[in-house]
Amino acid sequence: MKKELHFERAEFAARLAAVKKEMAKRGIDILFLSEPPNQNYLTGYNAFSFYTPQMVIVALNHDEPIWVGRFMDRVSALMTTYLADDNIRAYPDRYVQSTLSPYDFMAGLAKELGGEKARIGVEMGGYYYSARAHADFVRALPLANFVDADLLVNWIRIVKSPAEIALMRQAGCIADAMMRRAIDEIGPGVRECDVAAAAYHQMISGTLDFGGSYSCSPPNICIGERAIAPHAHWTDEPLASSTVLNLELSGVRHRYQVPLSRTVSLGKPARSYQKLAEIAVEALNAGLESVRPGRTCSEVEAGFSQALARHGLEKEARLGYSIGVGFPPAVGERTASLRKGDETVLRPGMVFHMMPGLWLDDVGITITQSFAVTDAGHEPLTSTPRTLFVK
Amino acid sequence: MKKELHFERAEFAARLAAVKKEMAKRGIDILFLSEPPNQNYLTGYNAFSFYTPQMVIVALNHDEPIWVGRFMDRVSALMTTYLADDNIRAYPDRYVQSTLSPYDFMAGLAKELGGEKARIGVEMGGYYYSARAHADFVRALPLANFVDADLLVNWIRIVKSPAEIALMRQAGCIADAMMRRAIDEIGPGVRECDVAAAAYHQMISGTLDFGGSYSCSPPNICIGERAIAPHAHWTDEPLASSTVLNLELSGVRHRYQVPLSRTVSLGKPARSYQKLAEIAVEALNAGLESVRPGRTCSEVEAGFSQALARHGLEKEARLGYSIGVGFPPAVGERTASLRKGDETVLRPGMVFHMMPGLWLDDVGITITQSFAVTDAGHEPLTSTPRTLFVK
Repeated sequence: MKKELHFERAEFAARLAAVKKEMAKRGIDILFLSEPPNQNYLTGYNAFSFYTPQMVIVALNHDEPIWVGRFMDRVSALMTTYLADDNIRAYPDRYVQSTLSPYDFMAGLAKELGGEKARIGVEMGGYYYSARAHADFVRALPLANFVDADLLVNWIRIVKSPAEIALMRQAGCIADAMMRRAIDEIGPGVRECDVAAAAYHQMISGTLDFGGSYSCSPPNICIGERAIAPHAHWTDEPLASSTVLNLELSGVRHRYQVPLSRTVSLGKPARSYQKLAEIAVEALNAGLESVRPGRTCSEVEAGFSQALARHGLEKEARLGYSIGVGFPPAVGERTASLRKGDETVLRPGMVFHMMPGLWLDDVGITITQSFAVTDAGHEPLTSTPRTLFVK
Repeated sequence: MKKELHFERAEFAARLAAVKKEMAKRGIDILFLSEPPNQNYLTGYNAFSFYTPQMVIVALNHDEPIWVGRFMDRVSALMTTYLADDNIRAYPDRYVQSTLSPYDFMAGLAKELGGEKARIGVEMGGYYYSARAHADFVRALPLANFVDADLLVNWIRIVKSPAEIALMRQAGCIADAMMRRAIDEIGPGVRECDVAAAAYHQMISGTLDFGGSYSCSPPNICIGERAIAPHAHWTDEPLASSTVLNLELSGVRHRYQVPLSRTVSLGKPARSYQKLAEIAVEALNAGLESVRPGRTCSEVEAGFSQALARHGLEKEARLGYSIGVGFPPAVGERTASLRKGDETVLRPGMVFHMMPGLWLDDVGITITQSFAVTDAGHEPLTSTPRTLFVK
């Protein structure tokens, strides 16, 4: 069977070593990773199977990670990870949505690793570790000492390797292609769902050189009066001859996601609106220019907000967040944010989506930029011009 | 602001009354619903915002449900629910991915409802109620009595109204259109990602009469040797001139999802494979013919498996599951399954996806049928012929 691995074995080894080092520092013997991006990061695993219980286990006393999931997904583990067959375990179908708990099966693996009384790390705040999962797990391992290891791997993932950045450049190309395609599609009388469909088609088709993947959340296509509802669903309604569209799209390559937002004005915008867009771009550029290794997230935010303040404006929500490998329902890495008070120091290889949405009463502008921190400053990961598009 | 409601107020009222009746029976004073489909079912709420903490609260002593979520999603609640403004609450951005817990804010609402010592129902096994959410919530309400109310609403949702069935017929039309589009796209040398892209485009565009929505999980497009990996990701590879594709697609209308799977043989299939397909269809039809109100899920499964057994074959995994309104990551309602031992009695208005995937060594056939239980038998929700497609 052909293996589909997108990184060198040495890179997986380095990631694992960093995780084990942090585990040792915190005195964690066994780490149960429920978050799909963390599973992918450490093993390569990629299949949409995490809606049934699935874990990657890292034990200090065991060389490789162990993947454990549903029996029918074992093949995907064989195809997409570097793990030895022995380290791919699966529970039978009778555990699926039944009275049996897969966490009993997983507790058995902890015992196999000598973990009855171990210090076990779990991701308490993860999307795929429910209240019941934890209760079942604790019941099955009554002598173990459970500690919250949420974000342990996320904070290691925050600095991307050159190979990861290369994939994110490809994701950026796909995002650019999606934006071109969506803007091409937009016109009076076109249904909102057909604009969304065009964006989706490009997201999955990718470019002629490389294909795309599904995003962690649907594109946000917020039109007209719904432009102020950031996560609203599109409708079947035809576009008016004069309206505003906020498009928040994301290109994805091998699960690495790069977002890109632009506002498109269908019909000539008011002068005041055009002016607002110019201010948004000026502040975005100031934010980007302030990116530099050694600076903090908070300092970058200040570069942006000072530029905005010169026009008497301010932005309430955070300015951006760390991005990388992701699975539904969210791309944000839940680590560093570009916001006041976040003292995370920028390092080369960190990647952010800077997203200065400006909302004034009932109008909004969203012109954003995903970028990697470099040795000297930043590298934009998309090339769509930072401007208000008028069609 | 224009309301986007897809059901009559009386229908929402009937749903709420059924939930309150069940709460009273179980002695639950306040129910905190974290599952997006349950939130949608009771209020109409529809936005991709549930990746930050969000709840719908039903209290026996309060007339309407209360929606609570992030401040920026309040607009979506105003637009997509029938709730009075007072029953739409939001926590400020400082609670988002910070050291503050939104569950403290939500606990405040429980107190406002007189719930310090209440019996509070939570969805312990839901996708959007993490181990930490529960820990925070219990800490914030130390005198309350927490009980597991997982699936309480799901078991009420299992019988669909005529208005819901009407939406599912539309979702079925979209699924049929997706299958036609994907089969049209398939050909030697076409990249796998472009087959996926065509299916996605149709899913979102819908039909000329009504638009579509995103599915709970990506289409499964399992090709060649990956045909045996049910949740694998497509690749960029061009299709061989002779190969097999298992397509598991889903049409979605206003969050109601109808799945449809077919196997497509590119190039003439072996006679033995054609024969396997005929057996799969014969057994599927036998299963469908055994559907009737008053019968159990287990009896329907027996109708299918007896037909299969006449050819010396058996199927390990369950034959199907209840479907309806859904959000990522999964469409299954986690209630009734068409499988041995499930004694759920069929009632008119229940809807299932019957999915007899047959896997023999390295080949598989997947020809499925979504259907509603009617007064006399069943109504298919898609019209794609039940056959092996050869192209």
